[in-house]
Amino acid sequence: MAAKEAAASVPSTPLLKDELDIVIPTIRNLDFLEMWRPFFQPYHLIIVQDGDPSKTIKVPEGFDYELYNRNDINRILGPKANCISFKDSACRCFGYMVSKKKYIYTIDDDCFVAKDPSGKDINALEQHIKNILSPSTPFFFNTLYDPYREGADFVRGYPFSLREGVPTAVSHGLWLNIPDYDAPTQLVKPRERNSRYVDAVLTIPKGTLFPMCGMNLAFDRQLIGPAMYFGLMGDGQPIGRYDDMWAGWCIKVICDHLGLGVKTGLPYIWHSKASNPFVNLKKEYKGIFWQEELIPFFQSAVLSKDCTTVQKCYIELSKQVKEKLGKIDPYFTKLADAMVTWIEAWDELNPAGEAAVANSTAKK
Amino acid sequence: MAAKEAAASVPSTPLLKDELDIVIPTIRNLDFLEMWRPFFQPYHLIIVQDGDPSKTIKVPEGFDYELYNRNDINRILGPKANCISFKDSACRCFGYMVSKKKYIYTIDDDCFVAKDPSGKDINALEQHIKNILSPSTPFFFNTLYDPYREGADFVRGYPFSLREGVPTAVSHGLWLNIPDYDAPTQLVKPRERNSRYVDAVLTIPKGTLFPMCGMNLAFDRQLIGPAMYFGLMGDGQPIGRYDDMWAGWCIKVICDHLGLGVKTGLPYIWHSKASNPFVNLKKEYKGIFWQEELIPFFQSAVLSKDCTTVQKCYIELSKQVKEKLGKIDPYFTKLADAMVTWIEAWDELNPAGEAAVANSTAKK
Repeated sequence: MAAKEAAASVPSTPLLKDELDIVIPTIRNLDFLEMWRPFFQPYHLIIVQDGDPSKTIKVPEGFDYELYNRNDINRILGPKANCISFKDSACRCFGYMVSKKKYIYTIDDDCFVAKDPSGKDINALEQHIKNILSPSTPFFFNTLYDPYREGADFVRGYPFSLREGVPTAVSHGLWLNIPDYDAPTQLVKPRERNSRYVDAVLTIPKGTLFPMCGMNLAFDRQLIGPAMYFGLMGDGQPIGRYDDMWAGWCIKVICDHLGLGVKTGLPYIWHSKASNPFVNLKKEYKGIFWQEELIPFFQSAVLSKDCTTVQKCYIELSKQVKEKLGKIDPYFTKLADAMVTWIEAWDELNPAGEAAVANSTAKK
Repeated sequence: MAAKEAAASVPSTPLLKDELDIVIPTIRNLDFLEMWRPFFQPYHLIIVQDGDPSKTIKVPEGFDYELYNRNDINRILGPKANCISFKDSACRCFGYMVSKKKYIYTIDDDCFVAKDPSGKDINALEQHIKNILSPSTPFFFNTLYDPYREGADFVRGYPFSLREGVPTAVSHGLWLNIPDYDAPTQLVKPRERNSRYVDAVLTIPKGTLFPMCGMNLAFDRQLIGPAMYFGLMGDGQPIGRYDDMWAGWCIKVICDHLGLGVKTGLPYIWHSKASNPFVNLKKEYKGIFWQEELIPFFQSAVLSKDCTTVQKCYIELSKQVKEKLGKIDPYFTKLADAMVTWIEAWDELNPAGEAAVANSTAKK
């Protein structure tokens, strides 16, 4: 009976069923999937188990999945496994690399189904797919937000030559309940909850950086996958909680260079559990200083015209990281090397000319 | 009785009562003010009568106002009156010039009070004032939108050095019901209505242009007033309906140069009446071609370091307009001259070192 009701709310043919993997990093049993069953069950899951590989992660019945623990990562990547973080959800990017699909959706295991203002369950994945499959408009701001949405369009004064848009590479979703705050803000506002449902999707304009959160994120692997590296975080590293931020700054610079779009806004998920602000402060505090230099670095980063694939862009960016950020801390030299290793590993696991595909659909 | 009810919904002390003028361009009796009475009555109105100056415009009782017709404009500005458009709502900018207040709100006479999703009347002016009095964040995008709003903040990864923000110069409000579409879109989608209430205010990032609509707009006269020139439109001019767009492109380039913020989003007004798309097409069609060259011009416009006041910025921009856009059509040479005349007239009517004030509060 419950299953039947659930089935009723599934779109008759799930969108991109055979073209999208859901990547979930976790250290615990995936009971949270029960709530997502009506929306996720048709899709293939890639679970990246963080921490102790001898622990067994239980996945609710009926889901189609593959699971990788640290031993698997070491076995598959060999010495290159050192580019994948340990004891940090940054390990999720291993899932992006082993996927063979065109699209990825990644979600944290403390994120549940949110309700829209009418009380209806939000199918977050469906909204991400809509965002990704419709173009982006990075070159000029549309004041009624996403012009491709039902009931909206380009407003007066929007140049007609720009109305075709560009391919969308990334869709960044938001969170109701616990907002994604840094440790200092968590400490200052322990009771703040996000209850504002903003019914909008918008393109982040070209040249503008944003804080990309990995909690509720979709992207086109073929267009931008090789740049979705979540860096070196957690065990043995001087920082944590900057994995998605790092990836967000890198992908934005590369999307801007290649003429690809990044959207933010809908869909919302329900973020249930605030992480411990004291633990977070320990992970973040170097990042809080460093980001003051990282932002100007990424804001002024320019990629050469030869950078015609995501891989070439990423290698070029890694050189600039080494040269310009290496002075801040030896960590960035190590990170720059890991960026190169990541690309090598990506190309090893994804040999079939996928860069060419990505490039051919990207607009210059 | 009705007056008493209305009074009950007025904030006990209207915000900025003695520091803000409401500017209304019109050709008809201002019956629309009845609906705005609870919100506008405490403020001073500047009515700019367009078209036949012998016609009498009726203003509902109880409003404090001054009214200027074409004869007044000619008398006050003398030969410089040729920079003020005739038979076009672009004439409204004369009101900005004669105001002696720090803030301006301008609204069209076919705009009524909209309701928020809870059914409550929206005090558009109050929201604009909130937008203008809180800082803007043009250098980095905040994914939870306006970080200064109740219940929101800067998210993880937002550089702390940028959290103070910059002064807000412009607040651009939106429209429910009839969206602000160009003639081709009006023709293609005659029945489209905007019913989506997006509960957000956001800063348009630095370096990004937007289509600024003059229907529901507030700004800080001291910070940006001299750049709020609505150009040459209407009678005797080759285009119309680009007055607010032109001002929007100019103010955005200048705000970006001076480190000032431009916000868009809330508040909504109820736009009641679509203008005739055939008439609009006639007014717009040259603009539709020209904007394809105007946008790249404004996107690449750079102001020199000497441009430390809005006036200096505007004069510098007028030179670039003459040099680079004069080739497109002689109209732009005439417009560039009118931009200079506008600044001369502004300085004549506003002699008391206001530029210095604007400059001292602008961040570099």
